[in-house]
Amino acid sequence: MNRNQIEDLLIRVRDGKLDIDAAIKHLTDLPFKDLGFAKIDNHREIRTGYPEVIFGQGKTPFQIREIVEFLLSRGNNILATRVTPEMFDEVRKISSTAVFHEAARCITIRMREPVYPDTSIAVVTAGTSDLPVAEEAVVTAEILDNKVTKIVDVGVAGIHRLFDKIDEIRKARVVIVIAGMEGALPSVVGGLVDKPVIAVPTSVGYGANFGGITALLGMLTSCASGISVVNIDNGFGAAYLASIINKL
Amino acid sequence: MNRNQIEDLLIRVRDGKLDIDAAIKHLTDLPFKDLGFAKIDNHREIRTGYPEVIFGQGKTPFQIREIVEFLLSRGNNILATRVTPEMFDEVRKISSTAVFHEAARCITIRMREPVYPDTSIAVVTAGTSDLPVAEEAVVTAEILDNKVTKIVDVGVAGIHRLFDKIDEIRKARVVIVIAGMEGALPSVVGGLVDKPVIAVPTSVGYGANFGGITALLGMLTSCASGISVVNIDNGFGAAYLASIINKL
Amino acid sequence: MNRNQIEDLLIRVRDGKLDIDAAIKHLTDLPFKDLGFAKIDNHREIRTGYPEVIFGQGKTPFQIREIVEFLLSRGNNILATRVTPEMFDEVRKISSTAVFHEAARCITIRMREPVYPDTSIAVVTAGTSDLPVAEEAVVTAEILDNKVTKIVDVGVAGIHRLFDKIDEIRKARVVIVIAGMEGALPSVVGGLVDKPVIAVPTSVGYGANFGGITALLGMLTSCASGISVVNIDNGFGAAYLASIINKL
Amino acid sequence: MNRNQIEDLLIRVRDGKLDIDAAIKHLTDLPFKDLGFAKIDNHREIRTGYPEVIFGQGKTPFQIREIVEFLLSRGNNILATRVTPEMFDEVRKISSTAVFHEAARCITIRMREPVYPDTSIAVVTAGTSDLPVAEEAVVTAEILDNKVTKIVDVGVAGIHRLFDKIDEIRKARVVIVIAGMEGALPSVVGGLVDKPVIAVPTSVGYGANFGGITALLGMLTSCASGISVVNIDNGFGAAYLASIINKL
Amino acid sequence: MNRNQIEDLLIRVRDGKLDIDAAIKHLTDLPFKDLGFAKIDNHREIRTGYPEVIFGQGKTPFQIREIVEFLLSRGNNILATRVTPEMFDEVRKISSTAVFHEAARCITIRMREPVYPDTSIAVVTAGTSDLPVAEEAVVTAEILDNKVTKIVDVGVAGIHRLFDKIDEIRKARVVIVIAGMEGALPSVVGGLVDKPVIAVPTSVGYGANFGGITALLGMLTSCASGISVVNIDNGFGAAYLASIINKL
Amino acid sequence: MNRNQIEDLLIRVRDGKLDIDAAIKHLTDLPFKDLGFAKIDNHREIRTGYPEVIFGQGKTPFQIREIVEFLLSRGNNILATRVTPEMFDEVRKISSTAVFHEAARCITIRMREPVYPDTSIAVVTAGTSDLPVAEEAVVTAEILDNKVTKIVDVGVAGIHRLFDKIDEIRKARVVIVIAGMEGALPSVVGGLVDKPVIAVPTSVGYGANFGGITALLGMLTSCASGISVVNIDNGFGAAYLASIINKL
Amino acid sequence: MNRNQIEDLLIRVRDGKLDIDAAIKHLTDLPFKDLGFAKIDNHREIRTGYPEVIFGQGKTPFQIREIVEFLLSRGNNILATRVTPEMFDEVRKISSTAVFHEAARCITIRMREPVYPDTSIAVVTAGTSDLPVAEEAVVTAEILDNKVTKIVDVGVAGIHRLFDKIDEIRKARVVIVIAGMEGALPSVVGGLVDKPVIAVPTSVGYGANFGGITALLGMLTSCASGISVVNIDNGFGAAYLASIINKL
Amino acid sequence: MNRNQIEDLLIRVRDGKLDIDAAIKHLTDLPFKDLGFAKIDNHREIRTGYPEVIFGQGKTPFQIREIVEFLLSRGNNILATRVTPEMFDEVRKISSTAVFHEAARCITIRMREPVYPDTSIAVVTAGTSDLPVAEEAVVTAEILDNKVTKIVDVGVAGIHRLFDKIDEIRKARVVIVIAGMEGALPSVVGGLVDKPVIAVPTSVGYGANFGGITALLGMLTSCASGISVVNIDNGFGAAYLASIINKL
Repeated sequence: MNRNQIEDLLIRVRDGKLDIDAAIKHLTDLPFKDLGFAKIDNHREIRTGYPEVIFGQGKTPFQIREIVEFLLSRGNNILATRVTPEMFDEVRKISSTAVFHEAARCITIRMREPVYPDTSIAVVTAGTSDLPVAEEAVVTAEILDNKVTKIVDVGVAGIHRLFDKIDEIRKARVVIVIAGMEGALPSVVGGLVDKPVIAVPTSVGYGANFGGITALLGMLTSCASGISVVNIDNGFGAAYLASIINKL
Repeated sequence: MNRNQIEDLLIRVRDGKLDIDAAIKHLTDLPFKDLGFAKIDNHREIRTGYPEVIFGQGKTPFQIREIVEFLLSRGNNILATRVTPEMFDEVRKISSTAVFHEAARCITIRMREPVYPDTSIAVVTAGTSDLPVAEEAVVTAEILDNKVTKIVDVGVAGIHRLFDKIDEIRKARVVIVIAGMEGALPSVVGGLVDKPVIAVPTSVGYGANFGGITALLGMLTSCASGISVVNIDNGFGAAYLASIINKL
Repeated sequence: MNRNQIEDLLIRVRDGKLDIDAAIKHLTDLPFKDLGFAKIDNHREIRTGYPEVIFGQGKTPFQIREIVEFLLSRGNNILATRVTPEMFDEVRKISSTAVFHEAARCITIRMREPVYPDTSIAVVTAGTSDLPVAEEAVVTAEILDNKVTKIVDVGVAGIHRLFDKIDEIRKARVVIVIAGMEGALPSVVGGLVDKPVIAVPTSVGYGANFGGITALLGMLTSCASGISVVNIDNGFGAAYLASIINKL
Repeated sequence: MNRNQIEDLLIRVRDGKLDIDAAIKHLTDLPFKDLGFAKIDNHREIRTGYPEVIFGQGKTPFQIREIVEFLLSRGNNILATRVTPEMFDEVRKISSTAVFHEAARCITIRMREPVYPDTSIAVVTAGTSDLPVAEEAVVTAEILDNKVTKIVDVGVAGIHRLFDKIDEIRKARVVIVIAGMEGALPSVVGGLVDKPVIAVPTSVGYGANFGGITALLGMLTSCASGISVVNIDNGFGAAYLASIINKL
Repeated sequence: MNRNQIEDLLIRVRDGKLDIDAAIKHLTDLPFKDLGFAKIDNHREIRTGYPEVIFGQGKTPFQIREIVEFLLSRGNNILATRVTPEMFDEVRKISSTAVFHEAARCITIRMREPVYPDTSIAVVTAGTSDLPVAEEAVVTAEILDNKVTKIVDVGVAGIHRLFDKIDEIRKARVVIVIAGMEGALPSVVGGLVDKPVIAVPTSVGYGANFGGITALLGMLTSCASGISVVNIDNGFGAAYLASIINKL
Repeated sequence: MNRNQIEDLLIRVRDGKLDIDAAIKHLTDLPFKDLGFAKIDNHREIRTGYPEVIFGQGKTPFQIREIVEFLLSRGNNILATRVTPEMFDEVRKISSTAVFHEAARCITIRMREPVYPDTSIAVVTAGTSDLPVAEEAVVTAEILDNKVTKIVDVGVAGIHRLFDKIDEIRKARVVIVIAGMEGALPSVVGGLVDKPVIAVPTSVGYGANFGGITALLGMLTSCASGISVVNIDNGFGAAYLASIINKL
Repeated sequence: MNRNQIEDLLIRVRDGKLDIDAAIKHLTDLPFKDLGFAKIDNHREIRTGYPEVIFGQGKTPFQIREIVEFLLSRGNNILATRVTPEMFDEVRKISSTAVFHEAARCITIRMREPVYPDTSIAVVTAGTSDLPVAEEAVVTAEILDNKVTKIVDVGVAGIHRLFDKIDEIRKARVVIVIAGMEGALPSVVGGLVDKPVIAVPTSVGYGANFGGITALLGMLTSCASGISVVNIDNGFGAAYLASIINKL
Repeated sequence: MNRNQIEDLLIRVRDGKLDIDAAIKHLTDLPFKDLGFAKIDNHREIRTGYPEVIFGQGKTPFQIREIVEFLLSRGNNILATRVTPEMFDEVRKISSTAVFHEAARCITIRMREPVYPDTSIAVVTAGTSDLPVAEEAVVTAEILDNKVTKIVDVGVAGIHRLFDKIDEIRKARVVIVIAGMEGALPSVVGGLVDKPVIAVPTSVGYGANFGGITALLGMLTSCASGISVVNIDNGFGAAYLASIINKL
């Protein structure tokens, strides 16, 4: 509640247009729905421009369904990430239009027609094995009403593959670059484009890759500028941020 | 050299306005200047929208001066980061308008009048000790022709200080949040704004802070969305990216 | 055995009221029961105010049952943590009133009526996925005869949910705050209450969370004061300590 | 501002006893003082029971003096931790009663007569080299109006030294145990007392001690219950928490 | 082959008592048996006082059997560590007297009557969960012809249990102390005995125990003297070394 | 496409042997084949001397088959590493001569008769448990047309086994040394040969071995010269590099 | 105080030969001297066979002198490790026979004529740079009345240097092996001798040596048996343990 | 000493051409010179093709001089790495032709005229700050009689600089690639050349670079083949290995 809203409310109290109890209720009203095991954030869309997204890991299928059910009742598009097939089975009981994106491990339910901005998001991967993370990014970007260009397997060990696609990448308004192993691709892309680059390290690799840590550290210490980094395998987070930037 | 420039060049060849030797020279000319110890990237501004920035660490004062001299000869604004007073002494020999930002450890020389976009960048710090990193971000954002709002010491342990400033933060187009210790501030800010948040961990703290690693990891695993992270103490990198976003 | 007890004993020896063998036995008597694979600490309750708690991990179901049987024979309440269903099956053979707390992975058997202090313990979680650790804390606090208030899913990314509950949290005498991912919640709570805050990092998260290390380090380097930390996922340890403080 | 205060304020607005501007001011008034480089938290004492403490590391001597000056103007006791002699020189310019605790690296200024609770805090160290951290704890506990018992050099390698002092330790209401190297002392103390134990790892040691990490991890994984841990060398944090517990 | 043996051989060559081919054979003879996938070290017992021990991990059951078969053919006692039941099934095919120690994950076959030294080895554990590692140590020490005293569950959180057993521990010639969690027991034992203490960290614990690293580091940085450390869970290595010391 | 090829092409255009359209096609033709999920690098053999190798991990069996099928169509030898039996089942559908190397987890298909250089590669392992990594190296070296000498189980704890084989090792042109645990073998070999030594750490071991990190670090800090290191368990990478050196 | 001593004391109380106060004093008498900042362990020699050793790091020169003075008053040999020249200056004020071992950073004062056992300790180093740690070991072993053989610079990269000295090493009763970098020497020595090997990692090296961690981990995971490890650079600890073993 | 040499020697003994004492001397002769603090490896050049190189770190200037003096007496070229100016001052006392390479921190003395192979070594750096490591590599390669091509500042953030130099790089027989920060350059080079690539991580960078660890790990997990890695900042080791390969 901002200053203007407080002033309006106080004027209405002074002028007798709003009684004390109603005013208290407004000043203290819950901007979230309490489901017992979770508090759904109703004001989130107003506050951050996006509805609540469900992080599936560590929740029970029943909890997922309950949260989806409540969000659907408010007319929201649904995005649940890091979900299991069991969770999808539960969700399907209450929504016949729910879609399970297997590689991306996401559930989406579209409730509103998308209104796309003119610009697009590029999702670029270094290798074929990075595809599941790319899928999570694509699913997220699309349910958030963005157009997406996907460019796969252009890692630095065969760098001419990247150069062939660089004009396509440059057309996007924001670029997500996904890479495992040494995570060098964002550095090269960052030196070639004039758009924000969001780097996503993946856990693809073995040995000294340490489940993605090496790629993560490499991206953080990139010699190129204009790059920022999200958590390992966090395709969702990259796309969520890209969507914010794409709609600025 | 982009496609249009190649087309122009070929047309001029066809029309006899450019002879073959000159055309070959243009087509093969080095897009960088070789100083022996460094290769200055002349095409960088065309390619990424920004001129070369000088990373001072590990270079000698003499090398810094040589690079500055060359860049000045091309009319560029100068930004050198991670510099020492000795480096500034060298630079001052060739530029009387060079400015040394002591806390930020930066040198700037402005060669062109700034043209500001309408929107601004917010630079927010958790504590007073994070100020040097904030200064590096502010200096960078300003030399790149951005308006900056600085908000200091609004860390989560006294969270009402943040709430007092949140409307001001929300007015920016992109928000840089700088925090050491546990690095929790970006998570809270990320839940309150609908703009991209660039998180900068600082090495402020001791013990289990591990020189900023704890803040870095905390920001990467933030429970809020819309956040990405740059290297520890990398105020420059955050501001460079923020500038790209601010001018999209 | 303290100084006064030694003096009493010596006087009784001098006065012939206690013979040498009995005195030796007293001075050397075992304050524990040796089961071969374990030594049950009989004097623990006298020494630390609490009976022995069974740490299930790494023990066999048979060993668990043997220890429970001995403790029951002395009239103790039973708490076994980190247990498996197989362990519970063994325990049920000797106690029909044993309760298996599945989410908390605990077994409890209540042998004495609880005598509650007036004050209570608040158990606060950042997310729904932190619930199993919260359950371990709640089960522990209750079997140790404390009243508990549980507040779930008030993480910092939607911080108004916390503010709605802050008065309820302030009513407790000691506050347990449980959080995974970046573990920022204790810092915010610590800045808002005047009670001891025990922070419990959880292994909820992925990638740079490193199984709870990031939350752990974040809590240790918290910018708020009045916070201390226990091991990752250690709901039991937090509640045990909270119980000591609640009964001071 | 809590519910009752809001109700009172609204009633006064309705009844014409408070005009709109004053009401807005109350509802939005800053509970902190902005010094430009820092925001002093005026409501902190009301909110958490303790005035602001100054964390010296990373601040300039001038900044320290400015903050001290403001806090003195409000009649607060002063505690500044992690300070340098240069900082003290600045502070002494504005306060002749300022005390510099060299080993503890603290500045204190006492403005109010202490009112001690009956109970006390025990500060126990494993070795002589842990003394500076113990001093920080003692200085903190005393400026926060607590009686302190200090017991030095009772580490586990000569455990009879601990047993000689155990009765003295048991008399305290809360026990701070400070240890470097392997950090085993809190485990032993925790098994011998029925009071909360706050463990402080120190950076004393070399090699595989890793600047205190080993002691920190050892304390977190202690086999004893009733123990919680603060950051490496954080004598202040331990004493602050102990003071809260001592005054419950 | 030492200097004296070389001299003898040369004299016999000079004196015509040994022909050149035989001399070459002696000087180059293989002191191991090559099984293709492994080279059995025949001279090991001469060189180090002990026959080859089989490290089962990473070998196939067939390989284990082949190695056992060869060693049996030379009349050696057999000890195979880190074995699986499948390996034992293979070994039983060629030896009816093979024994499978399930908790210790060892196979032993005794081929020679033991000749015990007068002195003994004490194997001490902090908790019940450390028993499997203790069993590996006991099995190893016994097949190497040592008498063993086993003392279980005397961890530092109930330190009177240790004091009750300390005289028994002091009777041994060398003491193996096995502990997980914070690994504090060797420090306490090291301060109480005048014998070599071999510390074995175990992977018992969770969270900040990091699979035994915390116990390992704690033991390495022990404040007590006279302690050395072997690898995590390495009951075999501790007993092997203890046996060498016991027979000095 | 290299300079000579461009010159040839231009001469053919000049001489009328190649029409303009075909020349444009050649000059702009993609040097890779896009399969949608992967881009096969056709020019790789020209550029680096070796055809594309398939890294199986993280790919689906279907993807593996598609890539194999395309590479076969161009007459290449096939090497796929880190494959599963399921992947081999797919590949066998399109190639009856495909071979599955179980221990090495590789698939090979030979399409061209090998032409061996005179010199050979030595593959040396410290223990029997390192054999799977050695097999990956042997399979790789052989499909790349090299002769290989394999020497097994000559680790440093029985160093005479190594000395017996050292002349055989010295005959190779390049030496691959594979070791787990402390990874000391390359240091000893490096001090005994005058050939390049490629060290491969393996994940064989437990506890403080940390899945091969200890061997990796040991090899990197070797006190011997002439050694370089590849990733943990990377038998393929070592053999690939050895093959390049063997054919220089 | 053991059982027999208690029995004697009780009999004397019963028989009136010892009055109550004296008996209490005996039962509670301090077995240490409290210097305020340190508690000197008087019973240590009785309990562990060795007098107190002074660990200099983190103590003040004044504290060192006070402790030395007290220990001298009891006729003990003095060993202080990790000392500075300033500490020695203080000690020389009270003892003209104090010796400062510069490379070893030790002070020794000999008060009793040494009685050497027949057997000796071998101190072996991999390189010249490991000498300071070796000196600490030698000084410690000698003040504890052991004969020492020192063998320097026999690292594994030139392994024939070791073989030349191996007979000399084998003559010792216990072998200390000191190595930095990859720390491979103990593995080789352990495979060649039938005596206990105490491995000391040193911080000699750079980069991936990580201040001795790599050598430490390598020694812990050694493929040879009969090896145990002490802390990085802990020449004192190795020699103290070696002395215990040498005198068994 | 190999088999043939042994046979020759034995025949000469049998035939009375060599007496027993001389034969023993030959069979046991020291292939190194013992300077007390170091053992100079005389046979090293025969065994590995290269004379002893002096690793300066951790040695005293006097020790350096002694070793240099001995090596000079045998007519060797001298290379000392990681030296200080103080060490050079000592060396200059005995050799007027000694050269101090300041950036490289090396001393060289050339005693023999170089005989260069036809092929050369390329030394490539990502940035200007990597120059000191490159200098160490160049100095090493040249004293070992190799021709060197140095290419500086071609890091991946401005990748056209690399492409401009790639033909020059391809002309070398072996390529050393030196990079700090994320260490991506070797991956790109490895995909463009058909020669062995030796990657050298440098400690250039800050924050998440961790003193070169990030670059090291990135190189180890490179997605390109044909790459191996040496220790952080180890320009010497890379050049030594490159020299071996260059002369195969």
